[in-house]
Amino acid sequence: MRTVIECVPNISEGRDPRVVSEIAEGVRGAPGVRLLDVSSDPSHNRSVLTFVGDEDGVREGVRALFAAAIPRIDLTRHSGEHPRMGAVDVVPIIPIRGTTLDRCVALSREIGAEIADRHRVPVYLYEDSATSERHRNLAEIRKGQFEGFAEKMKAPEWKPDFGPDAPHPTAGAVAVGARAPLIAYNINLGTRDLAGADRIAKAIRHLGGGFRYVKALPVVLADRGQVQVSINMTNYRKSPLHRVFECVRSEAERHGVPVVGSEIVGLCPAEALLLAAEHYLRLEKFSAEQVLELRLLEE
Amino acid sequence: MRTVIECVPNISEGRDPRVVSEIAEGVRGAPGVRLLDVSSDPSHNRSVLTFVGDEDGVREGVRALFAAAIPRIDLTRHSGEHPRMGAVDVVPIIPIRGTTLDRCVALSREIGAEIADRHRVPVYLYEDSATSERHRNLAEIRKGQFEGFAEKMKAPEWKPDFGPDAPHPTAGAVAVGARAPLIAYNINLGTRDLAGADRIAKAIRHLGGGFRYVKALPVVLADRGQVQVSINMTNYRKSPLHRVFECVRSEAERHGVPVVGSEIVGLCPAEALLLAAEHYLRLEKFSAEQVLELRLLEE
Repeated sequence: MRTVIECVPNISEGRDPRVVSEIAEGVRGAPGVRLLDVSSDPSHNRSVLTFVGDEDGVREGVRALFAAAIPRIDLTRHSGEHPRMGAVDVVPIIPIRGTTLDRCVALSREIGAEIADRHRVPVYLYEDSATSERHRNLAEIRKGQFEGFAEKMKAPEWKPDFGPDAPHPTAGAVAVGARAPLIAYNINLGTRDLAGADRIAKAIRHLGGGFRYVKALPVVLADRGQVQVSINMTNYRKSPLHRVFECVRSEAERHGVPVVGSEIVGLCPAEALLLAAEHYLRLEKFSAEQVLELRLLEE
Repeated sequence: MRTVIECVPNISEGRDPRVVSEIAEGVRGAPGVRLLDVSSDPSHNRSVLTFVGDEDGVREGVRALFAAAIPRIDLTRHSGEHPRMGAVDVVPIIPIRGTTLDRCVALSREIGAEIADRHRVPVYLYEDSATSERHRNLAEIRKGQFEGFAEKMKAPEWKPDFGPDAPHPTAGAVAVGARAPLIAYNINLGTRDLAGADRIAKAIRHLGGGFRYVKALPVVLADRGQVQVSINMTNYRKSPLHRVFECVRSEAERHGVPVVGSEIVGLCPAEALLLAAEHYLRLEKFSAEQVLELRLLEE
């Protein structure tokens, strides 16, 4: 597979395993699709599917996803802790290999138009695909949730990019967009001092003056008697793991606190870790083409 | 491809591109084989092919290699700077993913027996496949080279593992064996002091009291006005890159010499670099299964 695009749709069903598995099987059966993971959260009543393919594969996967999800998920009967506006709530499209963010933006527009047309669901292009600043942030789009959407969509600024000007009666609305790969990365500190973790989170996150593509929060790890800086890395090429790690280490050590470890939650692209190896080993003239397994992915 | 085995045969032809390419095309056309690289060295008059496959793929690749090489390479007319004993000189078989060194040893025996039977070439099992300590070291086997082999093979300790007790008239003899992946890894020092590089090479290599799976030599980089510690890492799991790098750094800095960079020559398994990232980022509970591209290699 020369072109690898990741798609991680979130659907509003995380309690009925039969429904989740029927939808997952629909995606798995689509031509050119590799379904890598399905994670359900019952308290959120929400599931995340992870699949990859080239452009055609992702098109087919999203087609199969909506065909299976729309008749099976009825938001008028849905409750859960996580905010949601659609049966298929959000469809992130992520360049991994042999493609670009721009090409994924173009793909997201094609896919959005097709979904709106086929299922009469309003589609908002978000993140890098957004056509207005207001639509860039998923949390902003989702505000009001399914129950408030008929009202919200009356405002001209909430006219969708594709589809009807009112929510689908059972499937609501959906956000579709391209974004850089996101890495969930946590750094664990050898202290119980949550205020210390909060100080470090503020130091490294964009909002606090830190790295542009870093979001961070302090978290208590009660079972370990430690605290954690919980991080979303929204662009590991521009704000790489090792730079953030070293910044956390420096800030922590200034207060005599050791960094006891870090963890990557879920999947991450090989490049994010290769960049760290390249940095610490001071590799010269290194190319991902030198990694045997990555060569095997080429045609 | 769930099982990935690398095979890097060396053939005694590095000057006639037509012959090299005919042999390479033979290998490329074998079922289940992915030919990744062909490198010819005219002064050595020798080429290295790199291909991968599962067990059946490697069997087919080696079959195709011998079928193409034996009629095309005549050692009675061969000269070059690199010592050699066979038209196909050596066939290393290397476990990369979803297999073990032991399984590659078993595979090397099957392949050796088949080659000997089909082409009447004596086969020596070497490295981890060796049946005697004397046969473990390729340089020992090769001593005497093609021209001396008829005489050498009269000694009972040089009876081959498979095939006739005399060299093939034009194709000589071949070494076949399993070994751990080898990484060519160089560390560059910000000094012209070759004696310093030699001191460090001795400190890190097995022979000098250093890491068990490290071979190292000092090298002058005339164009850079620097010196290099040139390393063969013969088992990166047991003697990992980052440990060797840190040892070189510590030894160099004790003499006020900076490590200006390092380089990986040619291909290396992803795991070698992931281990470095895991070390420096202090990753907890990390698994290669979390690397998206490696998941794509699974069935």
